[in-house]
Amino acid sequence: MEKKSCDILIIGGGPAGGVTAVTAKMNFPDREVLVVREFEKQLVPCAIPYIFGETLGCSDKDVASCGAAAEMGISTLLGEVRDIDFKDKIAFTMHEAISFDKVVFATGSKPFVHESLRHALAMEGVFTVAKNKALIDKAKAYIESRNDVVVVGTGFIGIEMAMELVSSGKNVTVVGGSRHILKGAFDSEIAAQAELLLAEAGVTFIGSDRVTAIIDKNNDNTVNAVTLKSGKVIDTDVVILATGYKPNTELAQKVGVSLGHYGGIWVDEYMRTENHDVFAVGDCSARRAFITKTPSKVMLASTSAAEGRVAGSSLYGLKYIKGFSGTIAIFSTMIANSAFSSAGVTEDEARAAGMDIVVGTFSGMNRHPATIPGAQKQLVKLVVTRNGGQIIGGQIVGGSETGEMINIIGLMIESAQSVYKVMSIQVATQPMLTAAPTNYPIVMAAVMAMKKIEC
Amino acid sequence: MEKKSCDILIIGGGPAGGVTAVTAKMNFPDREVLVVREFEKQLVPCAIPYIFGETLGCSDKDVASCGAAAEMGISTLLGEVRDIDFKDKIAFTMHEAISFDKVVFATGSKPFVHESLRHALAMEGVFTVAKNKALIDKAKAYIESRNDVVVVGTGFIGIEMAMELVSSGKNVTVVGGSRHILKGAFDSEIAAQAELLLAEAGVTFIGSDRVTAIIDKNNDNTVNAVTLKSGKVIDTDVVILATGYKPNTELAQKVGVSLGHYGGIWVDEYMRTENHDVFAVGDCSARRAFITKTPSKVMLASTSAAEGRVAGSSLYGLKYIKGFSGTIAIFSTMIANSAFSSAGVTEDEARAAGMDIVVGTFSGMNRHPATIPGAQKQLVKLVVTRNGGQIIGGQIVGGSETGEMINIIGLMIESAQSVYKVMSIQVATQPMLTAAPTNYPIVMAAVMAMKKIEC
Repeated sequence: MEKKSCDILIIGGGPAGGVTAVTAKMNFPDREVLVVREFEKQLVPCAIPYIFGETLGCSDKDVASCGAAAEMGISTLLGEVRDIDFKDKIAFTMHEAISFDKVVFATGSKPFVHESLRHALAMEGVFTVAKNKALIDKAKAYIESRNDVVVVGTGFIGIEMAMELVSSGKNVTVVGGSRHILKGAFDSEIAAQAELLLAEAGVTFIGSDRVTAIIDKNNDNTVNAVTLKSGKVIDTDVVILATGYKPNTELAQKVGVSLGHYGGIWVDEYMRTENHDVFAVGDCSARRAFITKTPSKVMLASTSAAEGRVAGSSLYGLKYIKGFSGTIAIFSTMIANSAFSSAGVTEDEARAAGMDIVVGTFSGMNRHPATIPGAQKQLVKLVVTRNGGQIIGGQIVGGSETGEMINIIGLMIESAQSVYKVMSIQVATQPMLTAAPTNYPIVMAAVMAMKKIEC
Repeated sequence: MEKKSCDILIIGGGPAGGVTAVTAKMNFPDREVLVVREFEKQLVPCAIPYIFGETLGCSDKDVASCGAAAEMGISTLLGEVRDIDFKDKIAFTMHEAISFDKVVFATGSKPFVHESLRHALAMEGVFTVAKNKALIDKAKAYIESRNDVVVVGTGFIGIEMAMELVSSGKNVTVVGGSRHILKGAFDSEIAAQAELLLAEAGVTFIGSDRVTAIIDKNNDNTVNAVTLKSGKVIDTDVVILATGYKPNTELAQKVGVSLGHYGGIWVDEYMRTENHDVFAVGDCSARRAFITKTPSKVMLASTSAAEGRVAGSSLYGLKYIKGFSGTIAIFSTMIANSAFSSAGVTEDEARAAGMDIVVGTFSGMNRHPATIPGAQKQLVKLVVTRNGGQIIGGQIVGGSETGEMINIIGLMIESAQSVYKVMSIQVATQPMLTAAPTNYPIVMAAVMAMKKIEC
């Protein structure tokens, strides 16, 4: 067994591990940082759906570049940590024994498949959306020569997969367990707009039903249909299980690191486990929601990156005292030519949590005047506490600018802005780039919320 | 003379006046609001350059809609207020005597032309970029059949005019008094990028020189050349004077309202003059810079709108205690397919003000992975105080998303965020819409600034 040593051992080379490594090296340049990762070529996880359509077209276009790490003097080892001796601070791969001072779990997540469907995972034609190049290549090759695809799951990965597949000529049906798609991120009236675009693109969406069985009618271990709870049977060549992800904590469990809710590794605000030499970041950690502080299943690379920055600067003392106080659940997706973005709590979620809220909505155009070529509708919805007028959530539908506009709302949530401040914030507006100065939608939605509070 | 009366009289129907009216009616629904404005059809000021090219193509496509005001019960009177009796609270137009309780000056700005060039204003072929439909139509018609155009001034209106004119086949020369274009908004290395795009589009830019005379060689009162300080003579059919704007305070001066710096009406943080029944908003008011608190010439419709919201809610008591504490100077422009945005102080400006600052710069791609079709470079530069790490300025070059990204930086400036907080903010990232989660450029620029502070 080869002996290696480092100061900071990072297990996993995804977004969380990568950012932790870079941040650690930047903050503690004299420390040896070693990243152990499984794959030579690591996929950019959020762009996996685009491998399946015309947008990227192949997985080689979706490989994360790791050049910066090497340049900074961060070491990388291809392999898998299989055991850890915390007493002597040694981690073991198949071939190496690595001594360390601090260890960071960044082991990510794996596709979650409901128990009732796991029987089908070994079937030809049934795939998950795994963050694994070889598996994605296999799925892509299989789908290429087939026509009918059933996507199970209506989260953003499921919807993006469906849109890419339909754009490349497949006959696509999406089956979700709830009435609307993108549940949790959007309220129903906004999800309904997304569903219209899905339908216009030719995707069939079946909500309020769910796949109860995946079938090989010919008993040849090759899928050719799914059965729904309603009894409906859909013939299909391919089934894609986009039913979420679960924290990858096999190693953590094996070595006795405590887990929190939803199977993630328990961490405090600085991403430390109970043992302050042991950290966890990204999808493998247990998360809670920023506003409600309830356990959260939201997994986003951008959130993982933020956690990595906190962990990477807190390995030796707390360099910056801003910890990670919960996921804002901030993300965007593109459906046809419209972008849908969400941050914080939805109206439904806030009401379910018993919060006393008002909602401010404003609908305008994303350019001004509206005659600017390419101008499209833009809708902003803000969720605001009645007492204090604090902005706790936002949803936007619009053009591609929406992807950055939601980050304005994200910052408002994170910095606890109230509508009373936001109503007169200064923004840049430009005919070719934004809505009108007089009707800037985030400000107008704040004004609408203020009116409701006063009534 | 017809007698009219209202509670709140707003003089001017541009962005500042319009937003003040709407905000006032919303906050004080029982008060009569009357807007007196000069033109039936009011141009959207920021889109005037797009009338001259293919983008809009005519001024009828650049008319502001005023439907909302009427619906809300705001009255409008076409006319010009020529005198005010503050003792009896009566304003006079040519035909009406309007009694009021509160009056708001929203008289806007007029093109500024240097003394040395004013002689040419009566010449055929010499135009300013006036916010006046008839004058713009006249200029457009004149230019249509001519070939050579000299644009004097390198602010964003001048540059947008030049780009639109060159795109419609004109031979365009821009002459500026300083070495770089867009001075004040961008540091030289970023302005240089914009100049490259200008050159690629076929616009000739002459910096560090200035137009000293506008000439009609044939003595027929029709321009056909300009002379520069260097002695150079440029033959031209058209001269566009885009040399800035000055507050329109003729009425204010006549009726004895005190002015502040740069000829604007003096106002406090709630947009009140010394007489608390008299307010001023928008370009006609004297502005100061948000960070340095020095007098500012910056005129932006979006800033005017923010002022209008403050004024409109402060007419009767201070409804919200957030006043307007200076212009952030936040704006964007589009040059070819690149957007250039700026907020707060530039590096040059900060150093000139004697501030102890560091700069954080990060250059990446605006999509991830970089193989996403249409991905382009994105550069973020942050100006940060060395003590405390407060973000006081930012500049961005990128795709159209830049127009909203600058509003994230704007909010950081306005809410006094430090790089220590920003380094781990949560953002939404999506392959088709934003940069990578691991290298989100605003966060990375903050990290770069932190490193410099520590060195």
